[in-house]
Amino acid sequence: MSNPHPWAADLGLLHDHIWSRLIRGVHDRHAPTRHPTLATVSANGMPQARTVVLRDADKQAATLTLYTDLHSAKVTELRANLLAELHVWDPSAHLQIRLAAEVTILEGAEVAERWQRLPEHSRSAYSSGLAPGKPIADSLAYAKTPDQTAFGVLRLDIQTIDALHLGPDHRRAGFSRADHWEGQWRVP
Amino acid sequence: MSNPHPWAADLGLLHDHIWSRLIRGVHDRHAPTRHPTLATVSANGMPQARTVVLRDADKQAATLTLYTDLHSAKVTELRANLLAELHVWDPSAHLQIRLAAEVTILEGAEVAERWQRLPEHSRSAYSSGLAPGKPIADSLAYAKTPDQTAFGVLRLDIQTIDALHLGPDHRRAGFSRADHWEGQWRVP
Repeated sequence: MSNPHPWAADLGLLHDHIWSRLIRGVHDRHAPTRHPTLATVSANGMPQARTVVLRDADKQAATLTLYTDLHSAKVTELRANLLAELHVWDPSAHLQIRLAAEVTILEGAEVAERWQRLPEHSRSAYSSGLAPGKPIADSLAYAKTPDQTAFGVLRLDIQTIDALHLGPDHRRAGFSRADHWEGQWRVP
Repeated sequence: MSNPHPWAADLGLLHDHIWSRLIRGVHDRHAPTRHPTLATVSANGMPQARTVVLRDADKQAATLTLYTDLHSAKVTELRANLLAELHVWDPSAHLQIRLAAEVTILEGAEVAERWQRLPEHSRSAYSSGLAPGKPIADSLAYAKTPDQTAFGVLRLDIQTIDALHLGPDHRRAGFSRADHWEGQWRVP
């Protein structure tokens, strides 16, 4: 059987393809790369994973951007440990992408311009009042009041990428910033 | 707007619904719960996340079952830290499920019966030879030879569940084994 995804058989094409999928996620709300899973480690060493929304992808700099409520648990976790992994499973491409990153938390004046560009209806995700995850007496016993000081941006400086393609033959490759993204085949 | 998912507005119904979605994942290869993301922590404290296949779900015991190649990195990570989080984003239900678990690694005689039940073509995922992730000179420079001693079963004893439903109103709840899964509403 021929390979339906020829980009999976060449390290350079595979690397390009990963980034084009990521960039598509920024613009296409239906792309699987729109909603990756962000894994972090809590202060007491427990793995944590949640869906996030991909806001920017810069292949040249190898950075990805997420937005967050600064009161959320993931920010508390990141302040203790700035290492994260972003995970995507793209069923139509039969492709798993794992991106290990160092995270920088941006806030305040650094993110004021992005806040200005946020549509009004999106701003309530960044809120004063009780922090996400706090116990409440009833399911709707909370209010979301937009608060610019709660708005944070996570810049993910990607350090390594692990890509796994499940095709007629399985292929897996690793890429790293230290190796200028040259790539290395791995056992799937 | 009325809630299109009435199960999201009641703690008991929500808990039942989570488990029915998980059980569906065991039997329906197209269900999002079929392919959760498993997050672990490596020995050097880095978060790791990868897609896995859900093999069993037992609501009564609150356990989930995965299969693994015992030579894979996740087993190395779990031998150092048996805490894991399983994550599912179910787009049609607008539901995120996060399950924190203690993992037990089963192997050898304990899993011989499951190995016997594995279809022949599935066995090559558990293989002698180079471990998954090892560098190779070319993309297909590996062989997968079925090896019963490489077959492991991960039993996840779920300790807590965090569920987030994105509807006309957002709702979030936590459940824990310690509280007999009674449930507690949380700020989304």
